[in-house]
Amino acid sequence: MMRTRPLKVALLGCGVVGSEVARIMTTHADDLTARIGAPVELAGIAVRRPGRVRAGVPADLITTDATALVKRGDIDVVVEVIGGLEPARALISTAFEHGASVVSANKALLAEDGAALHAKAEEHGADLYYEAAVAGAIPLVRPLRESLAGDKVNRVLGIVNGTTNFILDKMDTSGAGYTEALDEATALGYAEADPTADVEGFDAAAKAAILAGIAFHTRVRLDDVYREGMTEVTAADFASAKQMGCTIKLLAICERAADGRSVTARVHPAMIPLSHPLASVREAYNAVFVEAEAAGQLMFYGPGAGGSPTASAVLGDLVAVCRNKLGETTGPGESAYTRLPVSPMGEVVTRYHISLDVADKPGVLAQVATVFAEHGVSIDTVRQQGKDGEASLVVVTHRATDAALSATVGALRRLDTVRGVASIMRVEGE
Amino acid sequence: MMRTRPLKVALLGCGVVGSEVARIMTTHADDLTARIGAPVELAGIAVRRPGRVRAGVPADLITTDATALVKRGDIDVVVEVIGGLEPARALISTAFEHGASVVSANKALLAEDGAALHAKAEEHGADLYYEAAVAGAIPLVRPLRESLAGDKVNRVLGIVNGTTNFILDKMDTSGAGYTEALDEATALGYAEADPTADVEGFDAAAKAAILAGIAFHTRVRLDDVYREGMTEVTAADFASAKQMGCTIKLLAICERAADGRSVTARVHPAMIPLSHPLASVREAYNAVFVEAEAAGQLMFYGPGAGGSPTASAVLGDLVAVCRNKLGETTGPGESAYTRLPVSPMGEVVTRYHISLDVADKPGVLAQVATVFAEHGVSIDTVRQQGKDGEASLVVVTHRATDAALSATVGALRRLDTVRGVASIMRVEGE
Repeated sequence: MMRTRPLKVALLGCGVVGSEVARIMTTHADDLTARIGAPVELAGIAVRRPGRVRAGVPADLITTDATALVKRGDIDVVVEVIGGLEPARALISTAFEHGASVVSANKALLAEDGAALHAKAEEHGADLYYEAAVAGAIPLVRPLRESLAGDKVNRVLGIVNGTTNFILDKMDTSGAGYTEALDEATALGYAEADPTADVEGFDAAAKAAILAGIAFHTRVRLDDVYREGMTEVTAADFASAKQMGCTIKLLAICERAADGRSVTARVHPAMIPLSHPLASVREAYNAVFVEAEAAGQLMFYGPGAGGSPTASAVLGDLVAVCRNKLGETTGPGESAYTRLPVSPMGEVVTRYHISLDVADKPGVLAQVATVFAEHGVSIDTVRQQGKDGEASLVVVTHRATDAALSATVGALRRLDTVRGVASIMRVEGE
Repeated sequence: MMRTRPLKVALLGCGVVGSEVARIMTTHADDLTARIGAPVELAGIAVRRPGRVRAGVPADLITTDATALVKRGDIDVVVEVIGGLEPARALISTAFEHGASVVSANKALLAEDGAALHAKAEEHGADLYYEAAVAGAIPLVRPLRESLAGDKVNRVLGIVNGTTNFILDKMDTSGAGYTEALDEATALGYAEADPTADVEGFDAAAKAAILAGIAFHTRVRLDDVYREGMTEVTAADFASAKQMGCTIKLLAICERAADGRSVTARVHPAMIPLSHPLASVREAYNAVFVEAEAAGQLMFYGPGAGGSPTASAVLGDLVAVCRNKLGETTGPGESAYTRLPVSPMGEVVTRYHISLDVADKPGVLAQVATVFAEHGVSIDTVRQQGKDGEASLVVVTHRATDAALSATVGALRRLDTVRGVASIMRVEGE
């Protein structure tokens, strides 16, 4: 079935990822042809600043008019690696309208508007693939939506942001504070000049929304994801974690409720036991732990970002989408039939590690314990430490709802004997 | 496109895996219907011993005539979980001839005869899927042949046999010898009464053949895979490994040669550094580490065997194959276009850990070092230990071919001062 007319690809964006996609499409053209069953060629590359195009990218393919490229009429597949909401969204829509399938690495857009884009793809009989949008090179979208298509996923627990994992790993291994570790991440190119999207958890939250939607066959939007950044994690938190046999990771957690009738999605720093496979994910690596009813516990590990790894994911999707084009079919589209609602953070059930600064006098522990009991939060362990008239109390709870924990902490703050709540951290992965 | 006639599935085999497939197809019928886009029904279950069929499996579907079931003419998909070469091979061929696609968990058959089966599937426009044949529930076949379809895999390094990993983990953590650890594995149901296929590496070798073929887009048969079992690994080997900051795993290793013109596939026990992600794979878990040119280092981890996990993989394939049927298309078939030859073990390049029992007298180290030098095997470290007139010499080499190492060991055995070669173990994952 080797056809002679090559499949034509329009590449939107030619930065770190796009230039790698262009390079590999050129250097590995024969392999791609063999794997697709037909030659595939770069028909055009749309960029904003043509002066910035990297060496090795064919200059004659460069255009600044992305819309005209997508509208050309002979494009089989549009590869979108611009990122951001606009003009990516409009260009993808235009691509579908002109008969192209789309491979995208755009997590923000997929998390924000995935349902509408999927609907548009289906309307036009096109594919929308986006393996590269979640955890870079790690195959995750395909395993979740295809390999586990006969199973029931109950939980996804992942390190899906390399920048923050690098910072937390550095704090863990060197004892550095947050600012010092961030500076090192910036110097090494792991953190951007403005690290907000990473350290405040926005990037991870977009990935959590995408993962939760696929895992539970429902729709989860970015706004549905509870989000806490990791800028307030301290060296003291790591010391506390170590005492518990834990480390601290920024986790994206998607769960099906115990009754199966709703789901939750959240991103926040959490303590996890050192024995958990995610605890040993170092530096800027990503890893996602999946719990499914029949499969049990699976983990997918690899580089979560970077030009080459992301290009690998884009090209895997490109091969699949091209094969579908040749076979005049489409791959699996959106699967959101369960229509499970997303519950608010207050309904999440987990364990908590709370550090309190308290007055160093008799009866404080009894007072604190009473507050926990009044709010139905059961205490697992308590550790008291005195220091110069002040004392600290570290409480680790059994499982309780986030709402109950919040109410407990509110009441603790009102106690005269509690000088302050030094930290509250969730404990996951047990 | 919800059609009313259900897709009909014939299940061949109803043991640990088959009965789970049947159970989940019944209990999760609505989910499967939603994910496939049409209802899917069990049309018949072929078993050898109808008296042994498990509770929960519909009795009216049971037949002992597998051939008649496959030939019925209305079967869309045949799920083969019998295992072994015959009658599985004949039944799968018959299935293709009668218009069915096939989902198989049969590693032995795929490793032995994958090329012919793929050709037959293609001839009849059918699918042959077999995610469950390698590492149980862990998505591996699909990620390798689809997610990494735009990348170049250079190496696959995996723990693909749960029984032997359980035994080795037990020896590592408890200091037990091989026999004691095997007994525990047998008592706990991790090892079969006749553990030969596992402990001698036959099971892992079949998986290595399948993985190498997919990873390098070529054909690798079971006979091409070098195989050493793990029955001779001793507590002393573990002690040596610990001194090097290593542990011992039974690894399946598939590599592209440095010049890219050939591949190798092998199964043997090896030392790997404790810092390697595979080192922390405990108990009966499996994990496969993949190195690809663009993606970098990926790892896939999960339960490598068991009824439910294997059923999960079978059902994921079933959903994909059913979707292909509905779309009147097929998924990716065999990709063996590189036609890379498989080199013999002698051409494999790796590092070695050699323990020698030597005479405790001056000049022995110089003699031994000369033998290594004469064979072009460069020494990394040497450790001497004296004990009661005898001495031991532990040599760790730099990278050398297996042929050079074998010749070196042959010459060492001929030295008067070498009383014996206590162990030779390859060192991987560095």
